[in-house]
Amino acid sequence: MSDLPDVRVSSQDFLAPIFTPPRLLAAVDGTAWLRALLAAEAALARAEAAHGLVPAHLAAVITECARDIRATPEQVALLGKGVGNPAAGVVIALTEHVAASSDEAAKYVHLGATSQDIMDTAAMLVAQETLGVITDELASLAARIAVLTREHAASLMAGRTLLQQALPITFGLKAAGWLTSLVEAAEELERVRSTQLAAQLGGAVGTLASLGDRGLDIAASFASELGLQSADVPWHTDRTRLVRIGNALALVAGTVGKIATDILLLAQPEIAEVAEGLEPGAGGSSTMPHKRNPIRAVVAKAAAQRVPPLVMTLQLAMFQEHERAAGSWHSEWQTLSDLLVASGGAVHALLDAVENLHVDVVAMRAGLDVSRGQLMAEAVTTRLTAVLGRMQAHHLMQRLSRRTAARGTWLRDELLADKTIAGALDEQEIDEVLDPATYLGSTAALIARALERYENHRSGRELASGS
Amino acid sequence: MSDLPDVRVSSQDFLAPIFTPPRLLAAVDGTAWLRALLAAEAALARAEAAHGLVPAHLAAVITECARDIRATPEQVALLGKGVGNPAAGVVIALTEHVAASSDEAAKYVHLGATSQDIMDTAAMLVAQETLGVITDELASLAARIAVLTREHAASLMAGRTLLQQALPITFGLKAAGWLTSLVEAAEELERVRSTQLAAQLGGAVGTLASLGDRGLDIAASFASELGLQSADVPWHTDRTRLVRIGNALALVAGTVGKIATDILLLAQPEIAEVAEGLEPGAGGSSTMPHKRNPIRAVVAKAAAQRVPPLVMTLQLAMFQEHERAAGSWHSEWQTLSDLLVASGGAVHALLDAVENLHVDVVAMRAGLDVSRGQLMAEAVTTRLTAVLGRMQAHHLMQRLSRRTAARGTWLRDELLADKTIAGALDEQEIDEVLDPATYLGSTAALIARALERYENHRSGRELASGS
Amino acid sequence: MSDLPDVRVSSQDFLAPIFTPPRLLAAVDGTAWLRALLAAEAALARAEAAHGLVPAHLAAVITECARDIRATPEQVALLGKGVGNPAAGVVIALTEHVAASSDEAAKYVHLGATSQDIMDTAAMLVAQETLGVITDELASLAARIAVLTREHAASLMAGRTLLQQALPITFGLKAAGWLTSLVEAAEELERVRSTQLAAQLGGAVGTLASLGDRGLDIAASFASELGLQSADVPWHTDRTRLVRIGNALALVAGTVGKIATDILLLAQPEIAEVAEGLEPGAGGSSTMPHKRNPIRAVVAKAAAQRVPPLVMTLQLAMFQEHERAAGSWHSEWQTLSDLLVASGGAVHALLDAVENLHVDVVAMRAGLDVSRGQLMAEAVTTRLTAVLGRMQAHHLMQRLSRRTAARGTWLRDELLADKTIAGALDEQEIDEVLDPATYLGSTAALIARALERYENHRSGRELASGS
Amino acid sequence: MSDLPDVRVSSQDFLAPIFTPPRLLAAVDGTAWLRALLAAEAALARAEAAHGLVPAHLAAVITECARDIRATPEQVALLGKGVGNPAAGVVIALTEHVAASSDEAAKYVHLGATSQDIMDTAAMLVAQETLGVITDELASLAARIAVLTREHAASLMAGRTLLQQALPITFGLKAAGWLTSLVEAAEELERVRSTQLAAQLGGAVGTLASLGDRGLDIAASFASELGLQSADVPWHTDRTRLVRIGNALALVAGTVGKIATDILLLAQPEIAEVAEGLEPGAGGSSTMPHKRNPIRAVVAKAAAQRVPPLVMTLQLAMFQEHERAAGSWHSEWQTLSDLLVASGGAVHALLDAVENLHVDVVAMRAGLDVSRGQLMAEAVTTRLTAVLGRMQAHHLMQRLSRRTAARGTWLRDELLADKTIAGALDEQEIDEVLDPATYLGSTAALIARALERYENHRSGRELASGS
Repeated sequence: MSDLPDVRVSSQDFLAPIFTPPRLLAAVDGTAWLRALLAAEAALARAEAAHGLVPAHLAAVITECARDIRATPEQVALLGKGVGNPAAGVVIALTEHVAASSDEAAKYVHLGATSQDIMDTAAMLVAQETLGVITDELASLAARIAVLTREHAASLMAGRTLLQQALPITFGLKAAGWLTSLVEAAEELERVRSTQLAAQLGGAVGTLASLGDRGLDIAASFASELGLQSADVPWHTDRTRLVRIGNALALVAGTVGKIATDILLLAQPEIAEVAEGLEPGAGGSSTMPHKRNPIRAVVAKAAAQRVPPLVMTLQLAMFQEHERAAGSWHSEWQTLSDLLVASGGAVHALLDAVENLHVDVVAMRAGLDVSRGQLMAEAVTTRLTAVLGRMQAHHLMQRLSRRTAARGTWLRDELLADKTIAGALDEQEIDEVLDPATYLGSTAALIARALERYENHRSGRELASGS
Repeated sequence: MSDLPDVRVSSQDFLAPIFTPPRLLAAVDGTAWLRALLAAEAALARAEAAHGLVPAHLAAVITECARDIRATPEQVALLGKGVGNPAAGVVIALTEHVAASSDEAAKYVHLGATSQDIMDTAAMLVAQETLGVITDELASLAARIAVLTREHAASLMAGRTLLQQALPITFGLKAAGWLTSLVEAAEELERVRSTQLAAQLGGAVGTLASLGDRGLDIAASFASELGLQSADVPWHTDRTRLVRIGNALALVAGTVGKIATDILLLAQPEIAEVAEGLEPGAGGSSTMPHKRNPIRAVVAKAAAQRVPPLVMTLQLAMFQEHERAAGSWHSEWQTLSDLLVASGGAVHALLDAVENLHVDVVAMRAGLDVSRGQLMAEAVTTRLTAVLGRMQAHHLMQRLSRRTAARGTWLRDELLADKTIAGALDEQEIDEVLDPATYLGSTAALIARALERYENHRSGRELASGS
Repeated sequence: MSDLPDVRVSSQDFLAPIFTPPRLLAAVDGTAWLRALLAAEAALARAEAAHGLVPAHLAAVITECARDIRATPEQVALLGKGVGNPAAGVVIALTEHVAASSDEAAKYVHLGATSQDIMDTAAMLVAQETLGVITDELASLAARIAVLTREHAASLMAGRTLLQQALPITFGLKAAGWLTSLVEAAEELERVRSTQLAAQLGGAVGTLASLGDRGLDIAASFASELGLQSADVPWHTDRTRLVRIGNALALVAGTVGKIATDILLLAQPEIAEVAEGLEPGAGGSSTMPHKRNPIRAVVAKAAAQRVPPLVMTLQLAMFQEHERAAGSWHSEWQTLSDLLVASGGAVHALLDAVENLHVDVVAMRAGLDVSRGQLMAEAVTTRLTAVLGRMQAHHLMQRLSRRTAARGTWLRDELLADKTIAGALDEQEIDEVLDPATYLGSTAALIARALERYENHRSGRELASGS
Repeated sequence: MSDLPDVRVSSQDFLAPIFTPPRLLAAVDGTAWLRALLAAEAALARAEAAHGLVPAHLAAVITECARDIRATPEQVALLGKGVGNPAAGVVIALTEHVAASSDEAAKYVHLGATSQDIMDTAAMLVAQETLGVITDELASLAARIAVLTREHAASLMAGRTLLQQALPITFGLKAAGWLTSLVEAAEELERVRSTQLAAQLGGAVGTLASLGDRGLDIAASFASELGLQSADVPWHTDRTRLVRIGNALALVAGTVGKIATDILLLAQPEIAEVAEGLEPGAGGSSTMPHKRNPIRAVVAKAAAQRVPPLVMTLQLAMFQEHERAAGSWHSEWQTLSDLLVASGGAVHALLDAVENLHVDVVAMRAGLDVSRGQLMAEAVTTRLTAVLGRMQAHHLMQRLSRRTAARGTWLRDELLADKTIAGALDEQEIDEVLDPATYLGSTAALIARALERYENHRSGRELASGS
């Protein structure tokens, strides 16, 4: 049909402007994978040099060649097709490139390693970089939500359960809930990032056989060269580490999905308690001029709901055969990449949504009157319980609520007209008990707790990053 | 670390040489999506021209411009970022390009449609093209397996249950089972392809309001222009069609996974009844010179096991809100692309494996003796049942089998030595009953059925394609 | 803690009053499974009698004993523990029970079959019964929704996209969309039920070896005795049939989830366009007297969202080894049961919701004014396009819409005050174009199509059931 | 068909003898749930008494009544049907039962709580109990595998990659890998159990409004009464805790699946390096007398592969609306129960398999010769590398390996016949390098590390449990 420029552009790149920020994509794309594979080969040579298996100057040649090789990601992958993984292609391309400088050095490329050592290590480097991006954006997101929590600690609004109005809360309390979930997810992600990202070095079957008795020392140096953890034992078919990454990202995605869902629901025009800010072009419609779609929250939710099935693919891939697996391992590479892209994209879109969020406290306050006072029915019940007992109070209020609903009156009027109530509360007491601000229970204390928890998290994070 | 050429290469493109054949990738990549989006806009203009809403010569201008526009997929997607989908970007880019030729024509671009009309229609065009590729490769795969079924109809081997040897079968019977599953999956995929791929045209809320009373006629012409089905009603939030595609691909992937699993198990060196052929480079190891990995079956299985979770993402995305959804729709685009790539890649890798499959009938025959005759224990039991009754025969044979196992003898010797047996069968009868070829039951008839079923399918397919 | 009656009650039975109607549960519970297992054994004996392998009077004894055996489901399962499936327990229990009547008959119990033959056949009988219940309830649901479609063909309401108001529709059109999805799902489910439910008979490795040359005839009679399809070839490791059931139920669950989501959103008190009827006790809250939760839609959605992951478990279990699998098969039994319970429960709860649905056409009509006329902005744009061209009309209306939003005015007033508009439309024309009833496009025709499609489906169903 | 005793038995109970040990089932069945719900109500009353909201003697009455109530799980659930959860039924049943003793006490039942407070708290109690069972069995499993690791530290066998023989390992090293995964999974599960199981108390919208200013103190006491953590803020729509349980169980299931897969593969008769012990009845077949199925590993794998999809259901259910959700919450109850049953059943079956595992070191040693020496090709290459360089050595050995394979000779003979080799190694050196025991690399050190890690875990666990 079309004379389009005939460049290869994957569907992922095509959709990237909508779903994936460039910094994130760059941390996980094919070039990033290739860079990580080469970094692993170079680090291996240096680690072996440190323990006398490779002459130091030849390790330096290998390192240099890993830096200036001109192979493209696809060339390398094509070279690895026969063996079935791109690391094998890297070995071929790098060996050839090194040989052009030094035949002697070429003999030491990939010494003692198996393809999976290099792929798994590269996966960890890619994850480290990408999770770093995600962690940073989670920190920005939490910071912004902490501000909302503080600013709106007393902004009254309807609390909603089963998509019905229930009792008053404040928007700060809702944000405090978001904040707590985010801190939890971020801490788990950081814990995984700081403890689970290990280098892999085991040789063909995990014995490091071709490295003689220096295998474990070399493995330790290898990890250290790359800034990764050193694993106790090779993890060729123990995929705990990858699944831990996935599990933590599922927490992140679940939290993003929860917050985005709340924003989408609050932005409905019949509620209109929040809105995404109107940048030129944002949230418009191609046909409807009045449209103001909460498109960033939409994108965040869309990306987040793709995450759990990808995590599950990793979980099911744990059933790996013997010393290295026949298929389950190969199913992980694209899945991990997609998982990082989808999770990170979800966080980014939500950050964008929250940074542009307009909170309408007037609409929130007005929303409390949608039920013409029925929102406060529990408050009245609670007040009456002391006088009438819980069950009698509940039944009386249920009757008055239904009357309010059926007649379209206000609960205040029904209360004033009821004789039992009249015997229990005077008009001033009724107005007091119907005031939403008097029925917030532990709201303020809960917000304080959430903010304290967040501050501890934030300062812990700053300490850890040495700032 | 590395001075790699700084081109953007997605992880999908990076891994493509291993997992995805170029023809398949080209049918579903970003360029294919853009081409389909433009085709939809052009067809819309022509359909509206056919019903008098657009002057015919202006529809021709739009069609021409959709053909020669030079925008790249990423530019278009970037233009659509604000609205949240690439179709919106196509409208902007195409309108601008048309306006350069004719301001008058530019007024008619995208008339009466919503972004989702164009995205959904493009998705169906992409699916149509990609499923065509997959269907062709499934046909080649089935043809090859039909040959195996026929050739090995009488090639004796051990049947295995719960990963234990059970009774004799022939390799043709195993292949007949593969063939039947493939025919089932292919027929379902073809049924979906021929009945479920419909154009989408509903306008903002599915009423086609801005097309006045000609909406349904235009929708029918629009579908016809593109070679797609015409839907009874817009399906903006009825995602049955996408899920049908996914469900059919899950059947394909499940069948590929089953066959690949069998190949991997039969290729174990302790069994070695099949092997993947040794091309230069194929199935080698970067360190172990003797390795002959069944890498094509490995890749097929790896790709296949990624499919069901992607299908499930589509199934869960059916919960779409109101007239057009806030997120679930947006989660489909990448998922559909990935699903087509993974399913098609699985079929391709398995086809590659089967075309290079070496079947070792000698090893299969030898495998029947692994249990030193115990494989025929049920046959003996069946023969004895007439004489001793089922339970007594079963218990006697269980005892003799255990003795065979414990002593490392052959079942034949134990039978000859047992007095009850001696009273029932003479040596010649024992040899006869221990011959695997005499205990194949309905094997030949089942193979004939499977081949007949396949031939019907194949000729139906040829008829349908007019050859 | 508690002196609770120490009866064993599974969590499933505990939650059944909320999620699962008794008729559905009875079709799929342990007793139903046992009944089906026994029916399969009895049918096997009769089928073998029909072909001379079992004396007819002994087959009658077996049939009689299968009917009056007193074993409980758990006793039977316990007997099968060693072999790893309950069918093996049925064989033991039934053989013993038959032997008490006739030692001769006992020799013929389970002749030529493997445990999987009986389990798979029983699974199909359980599915047949349960899918029958689900199909009936889907028919009731579709009938009720067809009534809503017809009654509310002209009930104006806001169409909503991305959870924002977009353009007017009618409630009948929304219901027509629900109806079309339901018909699609129901037809697929019926197709699966009438074509995919086949008996299984293959013997240990699918050759029917111990039945000599009468295997296929016996298999056909066996299927016929049970009212199941006869499979071309044994399907011990071709799990297409089970996955087809799952795939169809995923369509059902997705459709239920979509409708339930719409109901929940429309029932929000700020919208209040539908409500679930108030039976005593229904939708109440334990603490809030005014609460009127749409609890049936909540339950429907909860059950529906459990379905796709269960379907995926079946899809992944297709990777079955050799002639009978080591684990994947065993993972299906509970999954199938849970899937039938969850899907059927979802349909039942939604039927309950829809039968009790109160539709508030006054609230729907009022909802069109939430945006103070902006909902009609596209209509005005369409009208202006003829005069101003699409882009200029769009930009003008975008500006006026923003002004309306910013000032809190009505779009009508802004239109009247704008000079460009004044040059194009007079006040009467403005009122006409702002009338939602004039901007419904093909709504009526689409509703007619959906109802026609439904009627065809319904009468086809009646024909098929012979009524 | 059948006169079966007409007792209600869920499919779960029917299959329990095969998949679920009684102790596990009792910790999670309907009775356990009811007990936990009642325990939560009683603890609430006592916590409120501690802070003066309920007279202490009335809290004692409530506690007593929660203990001696005779309601069955199903009666309670039926009472909760209208509200949509069983906790609501508990409130009704308990209030009535308390009222029979004391009208005064009845007023204080469920004071200030919402149904979800009680359900979520009960879920945590059920999880605590069930995870305790699972943790114990994991400890037994790890202990048994530690013994295997130690005993077989030097038991030579073939290491296998991509289901091909690769290099020698020892069975102890394989077991060390299993052990490390198990320790990881067990530690994560214990971490979750000790930090994530929190009581829930928030009232209708998480403000604890009806408890005035004593809400947080009461919540703390409530948690303490039940031996659960006290949450910083209510977690009605922050489902992190449940997902953490699921994520940890996915690690457990993945590890079980990996080990069971290895056992199933090693137990293939052509390999026969392990076998499950022959108890009366275990692993038999209903038709094949010689069958010795590794049924416990089969059941373990079957149960394990059901786990990840259930975890994903919980992950996706994190997208919960506002203060309490409309469906996602309701989808958790059955899912959590099923998840605990499936995970615990998997661990139990694997423990059973491992406790009955027969390890055949003679077969393992013999397996090393399957490739007629090619297994040692890498070892020879490594030895030759020093002389010939890596690439030349690799190519030479690849050629000799292919010759060995093609001719059916032994690698030793080909080495002896090759002139280049002859120039490098004498016969004694060749025999030395072909001895698998000389090419185990860091095997012993890795085993020592794994055992040390296990011992630390075990003693930490003992310390924690105060023994």
